[in-house]
Amino acid sequence: MPGTVQAIERAAAILRTLAGGPGRLGLSEIARTLDLAKGTTHGILRTLQLVGFVEQDRVSGQYQLGGALLHLGSSYLDINELRSRSINWADPLAARSGEAVRIGTCLSGQVLVVHHVFRPDDTFQTLDVGALLPLHATALGKVLLAYRAGGPVPDLEPFTRLTLTDPRALTGALEAVRDAGWAYEVEEFLLGQAAVAAPIRSYGGLVVGAIGISGPVDRICDSRYRPRPALVTYVRDAARAISRDLGAGR
Amino acid sequence: MPGTVQAIERAAAILRTLAGGPGRLGLSEIARTLDLAKGTTHGILRTLQLVGFVEQDRVSGQYQLGGALLHLGSSYLDINELRSRSINWADPLAARSGEAVRIGTCLSGQVLVVHHVFRPDDTFQTLDVGALLPLHATALGKVLLAYRAGGPVPDLEPFTRLTLTDPRALTGALEAVRDAGWAYEVEEFLLGQAAVAAPIRSYGGLVVGAIGISGPVDRICDSRYRPRPALVTYVRDAARAISRDLGAGR
Repeated sequence: MPGTVQAIERAAAILRTLAGGPGRLGLSEIARTLDLAKGTTHGILRTLQLVGFVEQDRVSGQYQLGGALLHLGSSYLDINELRSRSINWADPLAARSGEAVRIGTCLSGQVLVVHHVFRPDDTFQTLDVGALLPLHATALGKVLLAYRAGGPVPDLEPFTRLTLTDPRALTGALEAVRDAGWAYEVEEFLLGQAAVAAPIRSYGGLVVGAIGISGPVDRICDSRYRPRPALVTYVRDAARAISRDLGAGR
Repeated sequence: MPGTVQAIERAAAILRTLAGGPGRLGLSEIARTLDLAKGTTHGILRTLQLVGFVEQDRVSGQYQLGGALLHLGSSYLDINELRSRSINWADPLAARSGEAVRIGTCLSGQVLVVHHVFRPDDTFQTLDVGALLPLHATALGKVLLAYRAGGPVPDLEPFTRLTLTDPRALTGALEAVRDAGWAYEVEEFLLGQAAVAAPIRSYGGLVVGAIGISGPVDRICDSRYRPRPALVTYVRDAARAISRDLGAGR
């Protein structure tokens, strides 16, 4: 891409490699993974360390992600308008539906979770904010795919035997999402789990995110494995309220 | 600094500027703030946009932090050993003390909050993970300052009239922290609030973080404005347990 700065692209690739790996990696491993010279890689790592984006383990000498990224990530959340406008509607949706609520936006071919309200019970749950989910296998992702302008076709990885891995099946499903105005999945990402989601729109009706609920199949779905109409209504009402707050009607 | 890559340092400075600002900034503002040529700044911003570290608002053309930083920040948390070893001890500490628990580590002259357990009641609280707190005005920060090997002397900004802003007073307070093995502050950061913290140690006894509780003065302190001994014991017990898990005794 003309006009971009190669060193920054390489630095970002190193950070993605560290984020995708086992936690810590040595200089040689990083250089080999990215097909870079060791000297080049070392210069970039030193600089990333200087700015707090990586840390070097004092015992092993290996590199890992640094704390400055946590601060930047939480600053992203603080200023994210989709999230700030959604928060007030996500809690009531969790209370009405009795299920966990997630809000997602598209990030380089995946769903980035920007807000997560736990299912309102006492079960152990871990916070998904910052997690990346597949577009084609989640209800949030199907919404984002159905309304997006373009972008790379996602890799149709199978997560269960029900995941849509045939491009034509996915195209048909996305048409159904646009017709209905909401999306769902039943055991396409996790066995025993189902989800419903609806689009969040901004100025001019542009879809900027999705909000949805997910939970056990027998709670989300009726006896025909279709989402319960009341839950669909709750999700769509929340999505419309957030869209109104984001200026979709203006 | 020799051997570092200027473009990456500049990219990091742009990200810090966006994190510290009102949310969105225009090209000219960013270039002016960092005293860079507009062409240089634009090339860096284009690259940061390509890798998902900044986003450009389609209406105003202004720049803001991008979603890839949220994913990197949450990946940092996933692999952070201090946090993963602390989580199991932070919940019981909140339950025993009845107060909010935070775990912090040092990041470029401030306390980076890597874990936060809400006070176990129904009051509205916002998650502080990723927040930066002052070293000299918090109990967590005093612990980190007391045991750190070096680093820049923090700017002794006054937050209340009780904040330690005299370097000699701070030096004395840090000696007391080392003598006692724990730190506290009463209304030095926020009016009406007090806090207690203790060091978390890793291999060889190196202090790698701090764990502490904070809450209203009348709950944390006795009638002489000193932390209640039972609370201090709870905090120190949790810090010792985490240190043991991190291999401090080995």
